[in-house]
Amino acid sequence: MNNLTTPGKIPSDLVADWHTLHRVFIRPEDEKSRQTLIKYMEQILFGLHDFLNTHVGVTEAIPLAALAQSFTDTTINREPEKKLADVIQDIINQIAPRAVNVASPYFIGHMTSAIPFFMVHLKAIAAALNQNLIKLETSKVLSVLEKQVLAKIHRMIYSNAQTFYDIHVQNANTCLGLFTNGGTTANITALWVARNRCLPATAEFSGVEQDGMAAAMTAHDLEQLVVLVSERGHYSLKKAGGVLGIGNKNVIAVKVNKHQQIDMAELTRQVEASAQNKKIRIAAIVGIAGATETGTIDPLPEMARLCRTHGIHFHVDAAWGGPVMLSDKYAGLLDGISEADSVTIDCHKQFYMPMSAGMVFFKDPTALDRIIYHAGYVNRKGSVDLGIKTLEGSREASSLILDSALKIMGSQGYALMIEHGIETARLFAEKIRNRDRFQLVTEPVLNILTYRAVPPALNQLLEAAVTPARRQAVDTCLDRINTDLQRIQREAGKSFVSRTCLKIHPDDAHTPVVLRSVIMNPYTDGRVLDQILDEQETILQSPEILQHQKIGFMAPI
Amino acid sequence: MNNLTTPGKIPSDLVADWHTLHRVFIRPEDEKSRQTLIKYMEQILFGLHDFLNTHVGVTEAIPLAALAQSFTDTTINREPEKKLADVIQDIINQIAPRAVNVASPYFIGHMTSAIPFFMVHLKAIAAALNQNLIKLETSKVLSVLEKQVLAKIHRMIYSNAQTFYDIHVQNANTCLGLFTNGGTTANITALWVARNRCLPATAEFSGVEQDGMAAAMTAHDLEQLVVLVSERGHYSLKKAGGVLGIGNKNVIAVKVNKHQQIDMAELTRQVEASAQNKKIRIAAIVGIAGATETGTIDPLPEMARLCRTHGIHFHVDAAWGGPVMLSDKYAGLLDGISEADSVTIDCHKQFYMPMSAGMVFFKDPTALDRIIYHAGYVNRKGSVDLGIKTLEGSREASSLILDSALKIMGSQGYALMIEHGIETARLFAEKIRNRDRFQLVTEPVLNILTYRAVPPALNQLLEAAVTPARRQAVDTCLDRINTDLQRIQREAGKSFVSRTCLKIHPDDAHTPVVLRSVIMNPYTDGRVLDQILDEQETILQSPEILQHQKIGFMAPI
Repeated sequence: MNNLTTPGKIPSDLVADWHTLHRVFIRPEDEKSRQTLIKYMEQILFGLHDFLNTHVGVTEAIPLAALAQSFTDTTINREPEKKLADVIQDIINQIAPRAVNVASPYFIGHMTSAIPFFMVHLKAIAAALNQNLIKLETSKVLSVLEKQVLAKIHRMIYSNAQTFYDIHVQNANTCLGLFTNGGTTANITALWVARNRCLPATAEFSGVEQDGMAAAMTAHDLEQLVVLVSERGHYSLKKAGGVLGIGNKNVIAVKVNKHQQIDMAELTRQVEASAQNKKIRIAAIVGIAGATETGTIDPLPEMARLCRTHGIHFHVDAAWGGPVMLSDKYAGLLDGISEADSVTIDCHKQFYMPMSAGMVFFKDPTALDRIIYHAGYVNRKGSVDLGIKTLEGSREASSLILDSALKIMGSQGYALMIEHGIETARLFAEKIRNRDRFQLVTEPVLNILTYRAVPPALNQLLEAAVTPARRQAVDTCLDRINTDLQRIQREAGKSFVSRTCLKIHPDDAHTPVVLRSVIMNPYTDGRVLDQILDEQETILQSPEILQHQKIGFMAPI
Repeated sequence: MNNLTTPGKIPSDLVADWHTLHRVFIRPEDEKSRQTLIKYMEQILFGLHDFLNTHVGVTEAIPLAALAQSFTDTTINREPEKKLADVIQDIINQIAPRAVNVASPYFIGHMTSAIPFFMVHLKAIAAALNQNLIKLETSKVLSVLEKQVLAKIHRMIYSNAQTFYDIHVQNANTCLGLFTNGGTTANITALWVARNRCLPATAEFSGVEQDGMAAAMTAHDLEQLVVLVSERGHYSLKKAGGVLGIGNKNVIAVKVNKHQQIDMAELTRQVEASAQNKKIRIAAIVGIAGATETGTIDPLPEMARLCRTHGIHFHVDAAWGGPVMLSDKYAGLLDGISEADSVTIDCHKQFYMPMSAGMVFFKDPTALDRIIYHAGYVNRKGSVDLGIKTLEGSREASSLILDSALKIMGSQGYALMIEHGIETARLFAEKIRNRDRFQLVTEPVLNILTYRAVPPALNQLLEAAVTPARRQAVDTCLDRINTDLQRIQREAGKSFVSRTCLKIHPDDAHTPVVLRSVIMNPYTDGRVLDQILDEQETILQSPEILQHQKIGFMAPI
């Protein structure tokens, strides 16, 4: 244990003793101590927030490598190094200024954004209660509340009859859905259920869960088990294929149409081809309701119909788009989702909850019976313990946060946020179209769009390039411009858009770099978006970018 | 969307409007609003805590079914139902009194306990910053800090040379471990890596991650892939077998010796038998460092030696016991852990963090390369983004909480807590032995023990019962007594021990019910434990329990 002592550290007069330790576990008895703890919380609430209103912070002003040099001591001090007050001050002064200000209206690059103020209070409540939702004995009323809030969201998705919810909302034997750590584990859970559903027990086989994938394939005389999802699918679906023993290459990317939706003709062809081949079985087809890169939504009703015809599990990954159902104005965009066998929705995305919580729902309240696990000391058979049917074990009371947020916001509060995002993204698209240095790549269906910078001279070349090879030459040059544009803007630290690669012409081998914008902060408005585009136009005039443009002209076309 | 409106609800004059929404996203400008938010936090910190000091609350005073009746409304109100202040008041008045007071020193039944006061502050900080550790662009300095704190715990486990940590602490290409949602996903991750390691690519096969389990078994000409763990193993290991496509029946429970440790003779026999059979491969052997039911620790050095001899991945599930390494006095109990290929440690257990966070560590800093996933828009190849090598996607900054806690407590602060738990459990064992109505079933190696009530009359019968059949007759009667004893005490709401089933005589078919106690609250002392045993003795004299005893006498022996 010698490595644990750190002679080199600044000596502190703090000593870990039993009396002090004892005290940190109880409610302070005197008013002075109470006021001290309150003062710390005030620093957290406002000290942090003051910073968060002044920086975007995805800056390289202190390059990462240099920053990392301050975080290389790997010893744990034997005695306390700091008091709580100093830890909080250090976080405010040293950590926060070097974190990313995801709350800035100029941070429109990722699906992480500002959260309402009260979410910090709700998270603090969940921590103070410290209930563990794995089991009734460590959660009691929270387990009951969790079932209720899951039923509320299930009803938002499936709109079943009142009698259905009367039966299931507090039914200990059925399960309408569950909370997870996020969309990734929600998607894994859905495909886990789908895998087990399509490889059930037979006379000489106990089912894939017990006997494993290899035995399952033999028992069902199969050569390949596949999951079909468009090439816009989230990478967690491929990961799920790997984790679940299906193999990630068997999570097959179906090509998209020009609206970035799954190509129904191609999907139908693949489904019908497998139907002809008894050695191939489709475990699930995944529809996307809010693609991570483009915000686009697959044709869910057609996909549902195809799945029903062929008896295939239909999963909808609505990690991003799910809460759009709360907006009367735009709920129609998700039509068909009520026909899904399972649905993923994230809490830390458009439910504006802090990191990290997701949910997965099942049309059939007994679907989760396929993944039941018991133990003698916890989650005994027949108990109402929620941990029986979850991928994860111990879990915090995210349900209390969502339930409280729904009460504070109302569905209409969420609807206003979501409508603002969609409509501001449309406004942004309009602004991009109106500027001749930019090309809108994907229209915003929800609140996500992609575009790229195309300097006028290169635009002429692009328009003249009619063959894939010629387009590729220009695109390669544009890729350099857009990669550097995104980097320079990020490093400047005032605003942030992200980047990804998207096919613009379906037939091209090359996949160009595009800029990606996600608009969910209520303070992101037309003025902010103009400033972001202005900044990009300025960067486009910098020598670094103009250099690329010159090379572009020289490229053989 | 008609289901979303709720005509039956009490009308509220709250209306979701854009102006109000806007306000909840920003720092309040005026002092009055600031003071209001602080006041709410005061209620959270002390209103909740006042309750938590007065109840244990695992009571059925309000039976669950009746409680559930208040949580059946499955509609989401269109307009806001409540203000933040009212939501907090309702949680304090309605939810908290019906939650479980895991913070009570009389709650000694599960691995969930009191947490230090400052943990609520730290969780609030993580929520206020709302960084997403999936990616540098949404976390920046937190990614660097996460690598550092993981290196600190890696060093606690492996004690490698300073140069090793200098190379890896901030190395973007290697990974010493990762944060997970908890021990379950940590164990799944470890076995995922182990599975992929033992089913690598061959000339005509791309590896199990890409091609799946069925193809992998064919390519390696295998009939069975197994994981070996003692019958005391956590149920997440069986679940991992199911999830990973190995099959949960291939997670084989090896019998334990009388100290509840894996039987090394039996384990060696099984390993040598598989070594003889080319069709069987062992993906991993799992050692337990703090069994969930008994707190016992497997013979890690011997297991490590066996694994090394046969080239088998050695995983140690130290979800519970890991932090014991911080105590100089008891670190020796975990000797051999430094030879593990991977180690699970939970943060929300003996690191006293709020729900929910765990960690998994790898001896080989490149081990996690076997589960790398990329995406165009996030976690690009060659990036330092931490999300490349995690089961989960978006993650909160649990690392900031652990890092701060280590600074506030020092290793010595944790050591004092852990030593108190172990020594108080020994004291409890002594008290149980000294009372003639109880039988100590398992000695506390760490801070967990099991025992059962054996009324003197039944004790005589038990001592006289020399055959398994006779023992079973008495045990069945004792099972009824202990099950009801645990329930009655729980329902009385003053204190809580849990129960499980454990074999007492290795040869018996029957597995008796035992009471289980986990001691981690610094306020649980000899006086509290005497009160808990006194209460149990009183319950043993109740007509309900005496009735069982009468039946016991009548049972044919």
